[in-house]
Amino acid sequence: MKQVLLIGIGAGDPCHLTYEAVDALRGVDVFFVMDKGPEVQDLLGLRKAILQRYLPDHSYRIVQITDPPRARQPSGYATSIEVWHQQRATAYAAALQMELQPGQTGAFLLWGEPGLYDSTLRVMELVRERGVSLALKVLPGISSMQLLAARHQIALTRVGEPLIVVPGRRLASLGRIDNVVVMLDSHCAFAALSDPALTIFWGAYLGTADEMLIAGPLEAVKARILEARASQRRRKGWIMDIYLLRREVFATTD
Amino acid sequence: MKQVLLIGIGAGDPCHLTYEAVDALRGVDVFFVMDKGPEVQDLLGLRKAILQRYLPDHSYRIVQITDPPRARQPSGYATSIEVWHQQRATAYAAALQMELQPGQTGAFLLWGEPGLYDSTLRVMELVRERGVSLALKVLPGISSMQLLAARHQIALTRVGEPLIVVPGRRLASLGRIDNVVVMLDSHCAFAALSDPALTIFWGAYLGTADEMLIAGPLEAVKARILEARASQRRRKGWIMDIYLLRREVFATTD
Repeated sequence: MKQVLLIGIGAGDPCHLTYEAVDALRGVDVFFVMDKGPEVQDLLGLRKAILQRYLPDHSYRIVQITDPPRARQPSGYATSIEVWHQQRATAYAAALQMELQPGQTGAFLLWGEPGLYDSTLRVMELVRERGVSLALKVLPGISSMQLLAARHQIALTRVGEPLIVVPGRRLASLGRIDNVVVMLDSHCAFAALSDPALTIFWGAYLGTADEMLIAGPLEAVKARILEARASQRRRKGWIMDIYLLRREVFATTD
Repeated sequence: MKQVLLIGIGAGDPCHLTYEAVDALRGVDVFFVMDKGPEVQDLLGLRKAILQRYLPDHSYRIVQITDPPRARQPSGYATSIEVWHQQRATAYAAALQMELQPGQTGAFLLWGEPGLYDSTLRVMELVRERGVSLALKVLPGISSMQLLAARHQIALTRVGEPLIVVPGRRLASLGRIDNVVVMLDSHCAFAALSDPALTIFWGAYLGTADEMLIAGPLEAVKARILEARASQRRRKGWIMDIYLLRREVFATTD
């Protein structure tokens, strides 16, 4: 049996790892890495900084998995993602078969939280369907959503009110916005809203040296966020951001 | 100026503290504690275990704040909570004035995540309104929601779908349930649902020695969860649980 750990490593700051995660790192033989895109070097650098910090005297291997390109399927977004997961599973299965021996422990270091918009668990399911026998363990990590709240010193939830967490492409389809955390919004869906009752709490590169925060009435700060996003993206070649939209009206009854 | 840290300490397992949180613990002069109810001894014990583990040789004080009882207001739930927050703020302000000297650092150790259904930030706002000048810092922690996902080895979110996080008393008012995390559900709102398409992933006392997990079709496991809840509550005097409800139908298009 091969052991595979999915370890949440936070959004970028090595100090956000838990003691459980670091204990687990110490038992890992092979780290599997599959960053891609313009952020690949930065993110790989952050991962290596984590390993150097916590495993200065340990021996381990890093295996790079080539991430299959995500091709747009004519049948739509959900199918595109499913096809891509299947391709990833094929690549992961091959790497786990070849690079990890029975009795060894492999690990994937996941940005943020394995339970929030991360496909690794789904891909592992598909890896198992391909006949690779794995003992899986998931170690939670600090998500960018939590860091957003901590940095702005806000609670994401208000008394008695639901919180909705949504990918950017689905923001427009929400009926009413009271407390909504938006992730993965490369198209700036917030810019299409014009509601004077909305406040935005925005953060980018949370937990890293490039961390940026902007908060205020959406109408007042929207342009500033768009500008900051664009200029940072030019400068670094990639951006990772997240925000909370909140209707600034307290319910008087419930 | 007095420094106050709000430190997320996870759901119970001392290993879930981050390195950032433990570094912060080492600089704390006074820990403020205000547990109440039947769980008070258990939770105080868990907090003390954390301090003993990470601060074996440090000197610090623990100050117990008497939590004002939460009285039901005739004008409804929201008002009851607001009145209670004001009373808490009065108690906190007095404790911070009397027990913390300028230049010292105080801390509140918060279960789970300061940004999710925790009122401490709101209460701190009210403390400041009472004229207590504070430098505040928030340190995120692993939430029970994340632990639930890790233990059941699931992602809380599915591709392209929103996640709703809601307190138990609001579950019934949600229109449709696709992916819903329910917290603070002392009245077992899940039991009132009867929808054969719903799966439940339930967990109690997550991160502690009493951890329990049940998962399955809601209709099939509902009775087992109710029974487990009742018997654990009898045995320990309190229960802390959380669950994900999920509609087991994938959208074929989006």
